[in-house]
Amino acid sequence: MFSFEELVDQFADRFNRRHFPETLPSLYQPAEYFLGMGGKRIRPVMCLMGNELFDTIHPDTWQAAMAIELFHNFTLIHDDIMDRAPLRRGMQTVHEKFNEPTALLAGDVMMVTAYEYLSKVNAMHSPMLFAVFNKAAKEVCEGQQMDMDFEKRSEITLDEYMQMIVLKTSVLLAASAQMGAMLGGSGAGNQEHLYQFGKNLGIAFQIQDDYLDAFGDPAKFGKLPGGDIRANKKTFLTIRALEAATAAQRRELLRLLEGDTEDKVAKVLRIFADSGVETWAKSLKDKYLNLALKHLEDAAVVSSRKRPLEELALFLVRREY
Amino acid sequence: MFSFEELVDQFADRFNRRHFPETLPSLYQPAEYFLGMGGKRIRPVMCLMGNELFDTIHPDTWQAAMAIELFHNFTLIHDDIMDRAPLRRGMQTVHEKFNEPTALLAGDVMMVTAYEYLSKVNAMHSPMLFAVFNKAAKEVCEGQQMDMDFEKRSEITLDEYMQMIVLKTSVLLAASAQMGAMLGGSGAGNQEHLYQFGKNLGIAFQIQDDYLDAFGDPAKFGKLPGGDIRANKKTFLTIRALEAATAAQRRELLRLLEGDTEDKVAKVLRIFADSGVETWAKSLKDKYLNLALKHLEDAAVVSSRKRPLEELALFLVRREY
Repeated sequence: MFSFEELVDQFADRFNRRHFPETLPSLYQPAEYFLGMGGKRIRPVMCLMGNELFDTIHPDTWQAAMAIELFHNFTLIHDDIMDRAPLRRGMQTVHEKFNEPTALLAGDVMMVTAYEYLSKVNAMHSPMLFAVFNKAAKEVCEGQQMDMDFEKRSEITLDEYMQMIVLKTSVLLAASAQMGAMLGGSGAGNQEHLYQFGKNLGIAFQIQDDYLDAFGDPAKFGKLPGGDIRANKKTFLTIRALEAATAAQRRELLRLLEGDTEDKVAKVLRIFADSGVETWAKSLKDKYLNLALKHLEDAAVVSSRKRPLEELALFLVRREY
Repeated sequence: MFSFEELVDQFADRFNRRHFPETLPSLYQPAEYFLGMGGKRIRPVMCLMGNELFDTIHPDTWQAAMAIELFHNFTLIHDDIMDRAPLRRGMQTVHEKFNEPTALLAGDVMMVTAYEYLSKVNAMHSPMLFAVFNKAAKEVCEGQQMDMDFEKRSEITLDEYMQMIVLKTSVLLAASAQMGAMLGGSGAGNQEHLYQFGKNLGIAFQIQDDYLDAFGDPAKFGKLPGGDIRANKKTFLTIRALEAATAAQRRELLRLLEGDTEDKVAKVLRIFADSGVETWAKSLKDKYLNLALKHLEDAAVVSSRKRPLEELALFLVRREY
């Protein structure tokens, strides 16, 4: 069995190569450029670990892991267009460096390529595998649409935000874990535990993301805290603060978020502290982490095989960057 | 065996219904809106006919036909964004009626749904079927990129234009015919004949498209001729005219195409006539139609089964609208 770092390296060995032909560089160079930016490769490793929980890694699982990472990158390229984001991981986004039509098409062809890898999997597994993948793929699109819909609304309930996060972020992690389990030969019950493990971990992961943006140590996080606050982005923290704050704090918070004053971040963080949002976020994160770990515990395999997934879970929700 | 009209109706019976959930209307209503605009449904019918050439229509072929039509519609939604087209079939495009991010996502989710239909096909056929579909899907993206690349260049050779048209238009018709043949139980040799039938027919179809835009009867074609000329769009006709014209005609043609004068269309059509482009286009179209029909002829089935495909081919290249 391999650790997270070992699987990241093994995946990189297979993934870090050309995925597209040399012909038509106007389309394929932008696609390769984006893949070359790297990333944590969490989803494909989750898939590999889902397999290893039950058996040694099957060759098909590498194909599924590639498909998952390509699909994830396709969504990032298109999300960047929709969000008009100039940078990703400190580098120019595809529509910014090239142009928008090319970014759109590079995303499209990347999605087709994801399906190309997926369709190499043994036909015995393909109907179930496609069912899990397609469902997650549609839900990721739904999550992105909800996220955009929310931007136009002044207030969102915590339930609504949670539903959006599950679709936009969690289901692909969940499907990755399940697909790995499936290809590792696990039955339906254990597959469901793996799906729920990934789903709840995804929620905890997003809470940590929102938390770090507000309270992260700039030296470790790599960017100034408060980016979401400055952009008036809805997060677990702002939504909870609006729900938990006093009427006066609420008015102040709404005024601050909609404005763009020098002291915006400092003042919002003060309201977060005063309304107990920081403590709340930590305990909510722990709740979902524990839910995830409970599903892992309930999977019917010897506990020694669960170590790498446990470590990945703890890493994802305790990371400071 | 069924005629083109009968298969169009049978396909409509299955296709003209909701393809997306009622939830999240902000995403799915735009997708349904676009599908509701209709279309000739040539590609799915080509797939059905490819099957019927060899055997009665298999239930899987309906799934493949749905996948093909959804994929085609996904490409149209994204092409409209890239081309900044306000109208399609006389109705507002998705990005125009809703907004661009939603159009982008509606296209994405439509592509996933295409794969959802495709993955319902019996696992026995799925590896080959996915291989044919994925190859065509990537090539369609490549064709669109080439088309955009060409817009930035002042001159394109006929060979380059042909290569672009094959990718952007022909390969999906070709793959549709081949997929139908495959699901109808045909062997590799006959599948290849069907692929080549669809590919060459696609070229003839595009020549007719370009021809009608210049020489079509407005009463039948439904729009004023010369749309491509006014938009300075490269077509079989303009490219050929630039190659075949005298030096003086060539200078005049380039000047006219780049300009936007009142008499632009009339004067370009006159150069087309003087340089023999109209006759040339007709004979080029016949050449590819005959190539297509030759492949159909060479397919190893009794000729009575070939009648519907022959009729479809003649309809597509002789249509006046």
